[in-house]
Amino acid sequence: MGLDKSATKPHEALSAVLAEDMAAVNTLITQRMASKHAPRIPEVTAHLVDAGGKRLRPMLTLAAAKLCGYTGPFHIHLAATVEFIHTATLLHDDVVDESGQRRGRPTANLLWDNKSSVLVGDYLFSRSFQLMVETGSLRVLDILANASATIAEGEVLQLTAAQDLRTDESIYLQVVRGKTAALFSAATQVGGVIAQADEDFVQALYDYGDALGIAFQIVDDLLDYQGDSAVTGKNIGDDFRERKLTLPVIKAVAKADAEERAFWVRTIEKGKQVEGDLDHALSLLHKHDTLSATRQDAIAWADKAKDAIALLPDHDIRKMLADLADYVVARIS
Amino acid sequence: MGLDKSATKPHEALSAVLAEDMAAVNTLITQRMASKHAPRIPEVTAHLVDAGGKRLRPMLTLAAAKLCGYTGPFHIHLAATVEFIHTATLLHDDVVDESGQRRGRPTANLLWDNKSSVLVGDYLFSRSFQLMVETGSLRVLDILANASATIAEGEVLQLTAAQDLRTDESIYLQVVRGKTAALFSAATQVGGVIAQADEDFVQALYDYGDALGIAFQIVDDLLDYQGDSAVTGKNIGDDFRERKLTLPVIKAVAKADAEERAFWVRTIEKGKQVEGDLDHALSLLHKHDTLSATRQDAIAWADKAKDAIALLPDHDIRKMLADLADYVVARIS
Repeated sequence: MGLDKSATKPHEALSAVLAEDMAAVNTLITQRMASKHAPRIPEVTAHLVDAGGKRLRPMLTLAAAKLCGYTGPFHIHLAATVEFIHTATLLHDDVVDESGQRRGRPTANLLWDNKSSVLVGDYLFSRSFQLMVETGSLRVLDILANASATIAEGEVLQLTAAQDLRTDESIYLQVVRGKTAALFSAATQVGGVIAQADEDFVQALYDYGDALGIAFQIVDDLLDYQGDSAVTGKNIGDDFRERKLTLPVIKAVAKADAEERAFWVRTIEKGKQVEGDLDHALSLLHKHDTLSATRQDAIAWADKAKDAIALLPDHDIRKMLADLADYVVARIS
Repeated sequence: MGLDKSATKPHEALSAVLAEDMAAVNTLITQRMASKHAPRIPEVTAHLVDAGGKRLRPMLTLAAAKLCGYTGPFHIHLAATVEFIHTATLLHDDVVDESGQRRGRPTANLLWDNKSSVLVGDYLFSRSFQLMVETGSLRVLDILANASATIAEGEVLQLTAAQDLRTDESIYLQVVRGKTAALFSAATQVGGVIAQADEDFVQALYDYGDALGIAFQIVDDLLDYQGDSAVTGKNIGDDFRERKLTLPVIKAVAKADAEERAFWVRTIEKGKQVEGDLDHALSLLHKHDTLSATRQDAIAWADKAKDAIALLPDHDIRKMLADLADYVVARIS
């Protein structure tokens, strides 16, 4: 990649060039997360929304719209829509995963309760839906409705596939497309659609979001086995302990001999883990070199993302989106 | 009231006259609850959908559309939409209430797990959204998006209001409008909107659904204290044990002397219930005659529902809708 680490990071560069629009998105989010009757709603939402995160998804929508020359007001609504859908899924994910921490802070289900996380998630999902209806674009509604269904389907698939050693790379890709890439690709695609861009451009934006989302999730799964927990805010081996079959392990299972297979059956399928198992799992990932194979996959998806937008008009933002694809995988290089 | 108990029940009469449309709705529901990738989704959904229930809400949409002379295909989509939203909220409610039984069968969260209920609910909600987008009516989308937000808001409000003795009748009404009436009124209203009925008719249908939904929920809350559990499938006093402040208790709290108030504070607010408390609670409801006052409120809402549709065209279905309003409160007469 050869990124100059001292330079501005690409999401910061995007954030700077989109500063005015991002401020409008934040204002709209604050307005729409309010509830006249139920103060619990903005409390829970603010806990997540204020925790920061990079606002990557809404930024992608704004960037796509701007890149396609959009001058209307509705990219703001769509960016807020995308962030609400994302926040709603995070609230529900933390209930499903019984997580206690997110972005280095206690989760909402821990601070309040599962009930609040489920219902506030539902509320935000409904609010996202109201926001997109305001754009008046049936095509945008169609794209976001499909993305929402794909996200939920991916999450359910993950429930059943995660602990099943028959889960191969193609099922993994389906899960990742659902839980992560569907919202990335919808975010970029609706930016193009609202700008009434050419179909080629809309498709390019979709492909970019899809590939970027996949690269993003593969990196996330890789960092779970080799990240620096001070940077990632995650502990090494969380996925292993939670018996989540992700790409590094799927690749190792595919190459496992009988004894190794028995190890994966016991630890992932049966969940009977004992002291030292994580170290042994790591040694198997190293033995079969699956961490580096996983890294290669992530880089290939980032390259695919860059290729996709090559046909878009030459523009500062196109350059930043390409840099963003590099940056996503630079964390593991 | 004076209903002839041997006669066909109004929802059965409606079901008979709408039989062809209801069959189409059921077919569409079965098609759309499928998932290519995640078989868990139709399993969980079928458990609820097949359990029956009266399909009251989709029937209201079909009835409203037919009453307004609609001849197109989209009332089927809207009826399925409404049933999916209803099913999604049931799945999430059972997680929130930690319920083990629904319609006399174990709940999905008990048979599978909370995770499946949360995520399959999200999937159905997304599917409902896809279905309504297919109608191409932005007004319908607006109505259903608003209803969804009102439902979630009502549920969150209930979380915080249910155990708070300051909850008065107006807050109770807000909760009931959210958790129950919002979907009834949206169901009837969109039937009129899709038929492009006059604004007066659309408003009348909305008012009917709103009042019917409120009557329905008040009856439900009343039956919790005086129903026959063999008929209702609920145990007497479930709401009391779950510390849910519903109308009969709200009315009793308003009339409580200091000693009675201390009883409600201990049992509802603090949840420190002991043997014999339910009997004492019932004796207080009888002392202040709040069960009969609650019944009067339900009947008044049913009358309001009938009044609302009086201006609609004379039609068999209008008569059945009026009978339905009577029937809803006949359970407590």
